[in-house]
Amino acid sequence: MSLKKYENNQKKKVALIGCGLIGQSWAVSFLNAGFNVSLFDPVEGVTTQAKEKIKAKLRDLQNYKLLKNEKISDYLSKIHLAEDLSQAVAGSFYVQESGPEDLNIKKELTKTIDAATPENIPIASSTSGIPASLYASDISGKHRCIVAHPINPPHLIPAVEIIPAPFTSEATTQAVKKIIVSIDKEPLELKKEISGFVVNRLQGALLSEAFKLVKDGIASAEDIDKAISEGLGLRWSFMGPFQTIHLNAPEGIAGYVKRYEKMYGEMFNKSDIEWSSIVKHGLEEELLKLYQPSDREKHEKDRDTKLAELILHKTKA
Amino acid sequence: MSLKKYENNQKKKVALIGCGLIGQSWAVSFLNAGFNVSLFDPVEGVTTQAKEKIKAKLRDLQNYKLLKNEKISDYLSKIHLAEDLSQAVAGSFYVQESGPEDLNIKKELTKTIDAATPENIPIASSTSGIPASLYASDISGKHRCIVAHPINPPHLIPAVEIIPAPFTSEATTQAVKKIIVSIDKEPLELKKEISGFVVNRLQGALLSEAFKLVKDGIASAEDIDKAISEGLGLRWSFMGPFQTIHLNAPEGIAGYVKRYEKMYGEMFNKSDIEWSSIVKHGLEEELLKLYQPSDREKHEKDRDTKLAELILHKTKA
Repeated sequence: MSLKKYENNQKKKVALIGCGLIGQSWAVSFLNAGFNVSLFDPVEGVTTQAKEKIKAKLRDLQNYKLLKNEKISDYLSKIHLAEDLSQAVAGSFYVQESGPEDLNIKKELTKTIDAATPENIPIASSTSGIPASLYASDISGKHRCIVAHPINPPHLIPAVEIIPAPFTSEATTQAVKKIIVSIDKEPLELKKEISGFVVNRLQGALLSEAFKLVKDGIASAEDIDKAISEGLGLRWSFMGPFQTIHLNAPEGIAGYVKRYEKMYGEMFNKSDIEWSSIVKHGLEEELLKLYQPSDREKHEKDRDTKLAELILHKTKA
Repeated sequence: MSLKKYENNQKKKVALIGCGLIGQSWAVSFLNAGFNVSLFDPVEGVTTQAKEKIKAKLRDLQNYKLLKNEKISDYLSKIHLAEDLSQAVAGSFYVQESGPEDLNIKKELTKTIDAATPENIPIASSTSGIPASLYASDISGKHRCIVAHPINPPHLIPAVEIIPAPFTSEATTQAVKKIIVSIDKEPLELKKEISGFVVNRLQGALLSEAFKLVKDGIASAEDIDKAISEGLGLRWSFMGPFQTIHLNAPEGIAGYVKRYEKMYGEMFNKSDIEWSSIVKHGLEEELLKLYQPSDREKHEKDRDTKLAELILHKTKA
C-alpha cells in the first residue's frame, strides 16, 4: 500500500458489528490500512476482550513485518468501543457485520443495523453461507445489503468473496469492492448467488474427492495431503487453476482441454464433462485476454521463477 | 540435503530412457543430488539436444540458488550419452522411463528395457495415466515394474506419485521410494491403482467445479482463479486439505465434519456424502496420530506464521 493511500484512509471510520474471531480480524485489516474502527457487540464485555485480542494480532503482524505503522499504540488509539449500535454506525462510511451464522439472528440484526445506519452506507455481512437474498429481502435498505465473506484466517488471507443479491445496487457492489481493495485485500465477485459461494465450493469439490480416495483405500490422508502441499498447492499459491492449465499446453486452455478432457471424463465416469463447449463459450476468450499465447515463454519462465523462489523460501522457513 | 548424502550418491548411476521434457527434468534432479545419469532416446540426436537443455535448466537452478554444487561443468561431466539401451542400463541401479503416453509403445519399450536390464533393478515409468498393470503384465520382470509419476515442472515440484501394480514386489516399491527421497523429492504412495492416480484426480475434481461455475455464470475465470491464488492456495502450499480442515475446528476433523458435512452435502445436492462415516473408519485416527489436538494452538500459530511469511515473500517477489 502506498503512503498516500494509507493517509487518505486516516480520518475514515468503519463500524464492525460482532466482535468474535472474524470481527477481530476485520479490525486488524482496517486498522493496518489506516482506518478508524468502531466496535460493537450485543454481548456485554465482548468489545473490551476483542480489543485485547486485536492488540495481540497486531503484535503478531508486527513480528511478521506486515504492519505498516510500527507504533501499536497509534493503532489502539483508533479503536472505538461503541456502547450501542447507533454509536458504532454514526459517522461510519461502511458497516461490516460478523454475527452468528443463524438465519433468524442475521435477519433481525441486519434489520436493526439498517434502521440505525445513515442512507446508502453499505452493510456487508461476513457470513460464509447465508446469501443476502435470504436475510435481507424484507428490509427497506436491502439495496445496500451484500455479503463480503473473508477466508480463515481473515487477517492474513487476501481473498474476500463479494456476493450481491439480485436486489443489491450496483453502486453498493462497486463501493464494497473498492473498500476491500483499499485494505489490501483481493475482492472476487460472484455474479449470482449460489450455496457455498465459490471458495467453499472449490474446497468442497477437492475435499469430496480426497474423502473418496481415503474411503476406497487408495492412499493415506498423509499422502493425499502431500499431493497438495508438495505438489498442486505450490503452483496454486500464486496461480489459479485456469491459469495453470492454460499454461500447461502450447495452445492454451483449448489445447489442454482437447488433450485431457477424455482422461478427466473417464476418471469420473462421465461421458461428457462439457469442458470443450465451456471453453468455446467465452472461457478461452477471457483467458486469452488475460494471458496471450505469444507471452507463453515469458509466463512459463515467470511460473518457474516463482516456484523456485517458493521452494527456496520453504526450505529456509 | 546433507553433504554426506550427496557424497554417498556420487558414484551411482541411473539410466534415463526417453529424453523429452520429463526425462530432462529427471536428469536435473538426479544430477543435483550427486548421481551420474546415462541418457538414452530411441530417436537419434535427441540425447545431444537434451544435454543442452539440461545445462540450461541447471543454470536456471543456479540462478534460483537451488543448485548444490556451483560448478555446472561438474554436473555436465556426469552426463553420459548412451548409444544404445544396453549401454544406458549397464551399471545403473535404477531405470526411469519417460517415453510417449501410448500403451503399445510403452508395452514394447518396457519389454525391451526389462530384457536389457540386470535383475532386480527397478524400472519406473513417468506415465501420468497408464498403470503398470496395463503395460507390464506380460513381462517376465514385471515384479520390478512400477510407476513414478512426477508433477510438472518436475525439476521444481517435489511430489512424485509411486503406483505399484498388484504384481510389483514390495522390495521394488520400497527401493523406489528411497531413491525418490534421495533426490530430495516427496514420494506419495498409492496402495491401489486407479485411473488418474491421486494428483490428477484432486486437480480434476477442483477443475470440474471451476468449469461448472463458469458455465453457470457464477464468476469470471479470473475471479475463480483468485479464490485459489489469493485464498485456498496459500494454505495449501504448505498444508494439505485434510490437515487444513483438521485444524479448522477445535475438536479436529470430526468436529469439522460434524459442523460442515450438511453444508457440503447441500452444495452438491447429495443427501449423504458419508464424510462422518469415513472419519470414523480410520481417517480421524490417522490424523490424530499426525497432529495431536493438544498441539492445536502450536499448529495454528505455526500455520499463521507460515502464511504471514508466504504473504511477505509474495509481496517482495
